[in-house]
Parts: sequence; structure tokens; C-alpha cells
Amino acid sequence: MSPETSSTVRRTRLTPEREQELYEAVVDLLREVGYEALTMDAVAARTRSSKATLYRQWKGKPELVATSLRQCKPVSVSDIDTGSLIGDLHELVRLHDEAEIKRDQELMRGLSHAAFQNEDLFRALRELLIEPELANFAELVQRAVDRGELAPDCPARDFVPHMLFGGALTRPIIEGVDPDPEYTHRYIDAVVVPALGLS
Amino acid sequence: MSPETSSTVRRTRLTPEREQELYEAVVDLLREVGYEALTMDAVAARTRSSKATLYRQWKGKPELVATSLRQCKPVSVSDIDTGSLIGDLHELVRLHDEAEIKRDQELMRGLSHAAFQNEDLFRALRELLIEPELANFAELVQRAVDRGELAPDCPARDFVPHMLFGGALTRPIIEGVDPDPEYTHRYIDAVVVPALGLS
Repeated sequence: MSPETSSTVRRTRLTPEREQELYEAVVDLLREVGYEALTMDAVAARTRSSKATLYRQWKGKPELVATSLRQCKPVSVSDIDTGSLIGDLHELVRLHDEAEIKRDQELMRGLSHAAFQNEDLFRALRELLIEPELANFAELVQRAVDRGELAPDCPARDFVPHMLFGGALTRPIIEGVDPDPEYTHRYIDAVVVPALGLS
Repeated sequence: MSPETSSTVRRTRLTPEREQELYEAVVDLLREVGYEALTMDAVAARTRSSKATLYRQWKGKPELVATSLRQCKPVSVSDIDTGSLIGDLHELVRLHDEAEIKRDQELMRGLSHAAFQNEDLFRALRELLIEPELANFAELVQRAVDRGELAPDCPARDFVPHMLFGGALTRPIIEGVDPDPEYTHRYIDAVVVPALGLS
């Protein structure tokens, strides 16, 4: 059996709708109990699936959690194309604001702690959630280079995700409050735009 | 008894040398067992002091931990004054590198998780450790304004700590590796320097 046939066989076990329901159930469980306490038994019970199906389709808990988070992400960088890099960055904040990112901050904080203690989860999150989104970021930045907005050799061009996530991650530590859209728009204009030589 | 007299009385209970030993013992314990599992009993036993003394002098575990971290910090921003802002930023990285900051990254990661789950620790760390260091940062930046290097109304001037810590905090998540001095020097030149309009 070729890998493709094998994958087709696996995929037919759940309809896309059932799959999406399952991903949402995993994210709900994650919010309720956290990564450590989440068991494949609980996922199987909540979604009325067999553990064998879960393991066959997603390999294990780290992969199932990372895939679920990706499939339930409220906003993807790949959806954004306003025609200018500054516009794209601010649009990203607006879309996250509408998607009530506040709930996600708590989820991701717990998860990032778990990821630093669990190498398999760290790897699964990077491969299945973070790297695909970084590829979308690189495309968004490349379009700005293609339009002639951004110098192709700009030293900050590879650091766009670092700047954006860094501004958000550090605010609670430095200012004692969570980032909000006003803050993030201000950070983009004060830091990201001049670092990229766009202003 | 005036607050000042009271503070003098309290301070005489331990010599500065004994106090520093105690701070180092607390940081050692923190590395060994983490914040949650660290008890005032263990600190008392390790340092051969009475719990009454510990509570009288430091109020509680969050304050004792935050003060210990501050007193054992290998590098303070207040020690840095190279004569230029770019020089100061790179000097900060060099001094941290010499102080083997790698050990501290693991310590601070565990602690930051504890701080988001424990409001008293969060408050103590901000008041006793972070805010004093932010004041030193503000002074370092103000000197650059006074020297005429940095525009007083530069929008990024209040974000220097966010940029520096953000670059370090995001690298493991985005690139899968911890920050090292080569990376941080590169980040300063690519992001912080142009954001501040210094290049």
C-alpha cells in the first residue's frame, strides 16, 4: 500500500465535519484541564471516538493537540493581503482583536510552559502549528519585497515574527498588563515600521 | 516606633554577609525545586535561620524570592555606561554572556510560569526586581537623549526593554533554539538600532 493510499484510508475514517468537531473538543479540553492533565481517554470519551482511531490518525497526544490548535486558529496570516506591509501588520491585529484573542493568551501561556517541559510537544507545536504560520509570514514579507516596499536585504526582514510576538509577550512582564489592540498598533508603528525602514 | 527605626532594628538582625548568603541559598533552592515546592521551612533549614526572622525581614515567600533574585543578579543595567546607546546595548549582551546567562534562562522560565499563576509572586517580582531595572533602563536611554544621540520624541524610546527581552523570549518559540550572544548582537543591530533611528 502506497503512503498516499494509506493516508486516504485513514482519512475516510472521519468526515471533515467530525474531524473539525474533534479538534474543537480537544481545544475545549485543553482550556479546561491544561496539557498535562489532558488524556487520550478523555478526548475519546468527549468525542465518542475510539482511542485506536485517535492514535492511528494523529500518532499521539502532542500531534493531536498541535493539529487541533492549528485547525481551530481564529486567524491565519495566510488570510491577510491588504496590498501594503504596514496595512497587513495592522490587519493582523484587527483580526486577532475580533477573534477575542484574550482567551487564547491564557491557553498559549499554559501550553508554552508545557512545551518547555515536554520535548515531543515542543516539536509537534513547532512542526504543525508554528512553522506553517512562519512560512505564511515569510510570504507576506516577500510580497512587500516584490512590491518594492521593503529592501530585499533589510536586516530586520527575518525578524518580523520576533518583533510582533516579542511586543505581545513582554508587555505583561514589563508593564504588568496584557497587550491590547491599542498597544499592539502603537508597537507596530513605533518599532516594527521603523525597524523595517518603512516609515 | 517610626518606620525608619523599625527598619533599622530589622536590618541589624542579619549582617550584610549573612544576608547575601541567605539570598544565594534561596536562589540555589529555587533552581533545585522551583518556586511552588520552595518552602520557608526549607529556606530556614538551609540557611540555619528561624522562620520568624525570615517572615519579619521579608514579609513572605514572594518578597524573599524576588529580593533574592535581585541581590544575586549577575548583571545590572545600572553598571553600564559606555558613552553611546549602541555601545551600552551591546555591552549588556557581553556582560550577560560572561555571567553565563544560560542557567538563568531556565530559572526565569520556571519562575515566569509561577508568576502568571500566583498574583503575589507576580507583584513582588515586578516591584522588587523588574521595576528597579526598568528605571535603570530609562536612565540609560535618557543619557542617550541628553547626549543628543536619540530624539527625545522617538516613539520607540519607551520600548527598549520590550525589544531586547522580546527578541530573547521569542527565539526558542520561533527558531527552536535559545538566544545566544551572536543572535542578540544581530537582533540589536537589525531591530533595536533602526527602530530607535540610531543607524
